Amino acid sequence: MIMQSGESRTTRPGPVTRIRVREVSGTAVRDHRDDLATEEPLEIRLLAGRESRTVAITMRTPGVDFELAAGFLHGEGIIAPGGIEAIGYCTDEDLEPEARYNTVTVRLGTTELPDISALERHFVTSSACGVCGTASLDALRDRCAPLGGGPAIEVSPEVVYGMPDTLRKAQGVFGKTGGLHAAGLFTPDGALVAAREDVGRHNAVDKLVGWALLTERLPLDRHVLLVSGRASYEIMQKALAAGIQVVCAVSAPSSLAVTLARDFGMTLVGFLRGERFNIYSGTERIAA
Amino acid sequence: MIMQSGESRTTRPGPVTRIRVREVSGTAVRDHRDDLATEEPLEIRLLAGRESRTVAITMRTPGVDFELAAGFLHGEGIIAPGGIEAIGYCTDEDLEPEARYNTVTVRLGTTELPDISALERHFVTSSACGVCGTASLDALRDRCAPLGGGPAIEVSPEVVYGMPDTLRKAQGVFGKTGGLHAAGLFTPDGALVAAREDVGRHNAVDKLVGWALLTERLPLDRHVLLVSGRASYEIMQKALAAGIQVVCAVSAPSSLAVTLARDFGMTLVGFLRGERFNIYSGTERIAA
Repeated sequence: MIMQSGESRTTRPGPVTRIRVREVSGTAVRDHRDDLATEEPLEIRLLAGRESRTVAITMRTPGVDFELAAGFLHGEGIIAPGGIEAIGYCTDEDLEPEARYNTVTVRLGTTELPDISALERHFVTSSACGVCGTASLDALRDRCAPLGGGPAIEVSPEVVYGMPDTLRKAQGVFGKTGGLHAAGLFTPDGALVAAREDVGRHNAVDKLVGWALLTERLPLDRHVLLVSGRASYEIMQKALAAGIQVVCAVSAPSSLAVTLARDFGMTLVGFLRGERFNIYSGTERIAA
Repeated sequence: MIMQSGESRTTRPGPVTRIRVREVSGTAVRDHRDDLATEEPLEIRLLAGRESRTVAITMRTPGVDFELAAGFLHGEGIIAPGGIEAIGYCTDEDLEPEARYNTVTVRLGTTELPDISALERHFVTSSACGVCGTASLDALRDRCAPLGGGPAIEVSPEVVYGMPDTLRKAQGVFGKTGGLHAAGLFTPDGALVAAREDVGRHNAVDKLVGWALLTERLPLDRHVLLVSGRASYEIMQKALAAGIQVVCAVSAPSSLAVTLARDFGMTLVGFLRGERFNIYSGTERIAA
């Protein structure tokens, strides 16, 4: 099996992205630099004989992309051990340089592609080529405007500090299973408006926004969203579409979540634990 | 807008599933019943005029499925507020009763379906109907045999207690971002064989299995998998395909993860924190 290595490391995304961050702790405020896990899309393509097909696009942390592609294909039952002839990055000249390390091609030893109809129930089958964080943001720009135009809301650090505890207390029946992601919608003065839970963290946010849509409360431009876990690109995309200006996460944001927040004028707070948090974007909405 | 309610609650999955569990704490062992978050697939279908299309299948916790469907479609830019004419469960007579509350149909006010080509890059477009946990397990049975046939491995509680700390120490560069899911592969006596990280928890497991595949170590029937977060259906599916007999999770398993583990003869440990954990399936491999 051939494992092609990258030609140039200059445009290759690394596993860690260094960014500027404002830390708020008690009543102190400090600006510094911090590392975030990089989040970039990866497109996995199968090749067999003259056939070629994209079987998945997944957000991932770059670094060991050949392992990720091989493991994904094995887990879905598409390949068996020994079934890979070659694996490498897409060297298509048409690709933007930053997309070249976001596409892995897996060449099989067979002359035809395997049946992936079962996979199609869950994954992409587009033949379009070239994914990268910038392209994802460009596509989002076509349907979502930056949030500068809405009402200016401001939230105090004390309100932010208190939100995780309020959300935990609202978890009720689900809370005792300990296995659920939660998302809560708050007013700028910290009152909980609605809370939803799910085994999937994206689903918890979808349920909140869906509730707002079905009860004619959209856009949520006077609300703060709190998620119990990490802030990923998808969480931020869903919040943006709902017009939410301030998103707080108990855990870390990804690099692409921060880029999205900055590009679209959103406030993003992360590592919200006890009386401390980091502001990654839109510091003007936190009255620190 | 019409919101159809469920006709019968008898076959409708609830948000919480009660199961039997063995708790191991220090040197004590106790059997009792516990609640888990239910995990079941949800199929979201769009209807417009005479057109019908499945746009997504997602694993979710049942409960507020109309909100989830509406919020998902809004977040992906497919519908605007006011764009939904009716929303309800699929009442298709062909569906198995247990699948009826796992399919939500959203009727739009338009005569044609919207362009969802952008969505196709990330989601399913199959027109097959009827999803439920049982069907997911049946499909898995077609390609994965239960794990009873492999070598019998046994792990002591002391080894299990020590694994999360070993994995955390191995996180290295990534660890400092605080934003990553980790997965580690261990020998039955607790030695760490490989560790991988990612913003997505499925990806961390894919990377581990991919590493094993590319270095010709599959099947992993003499290894223990530890994941830093929850154990979902997808995590268990990936472990099963790799031949892993023992899966440990720092957080809770979902209901469907437990069902999968029991159906396929896997050992599943959850809530592994300090000197305690729960065994949800395959107690014979834990020497307690």
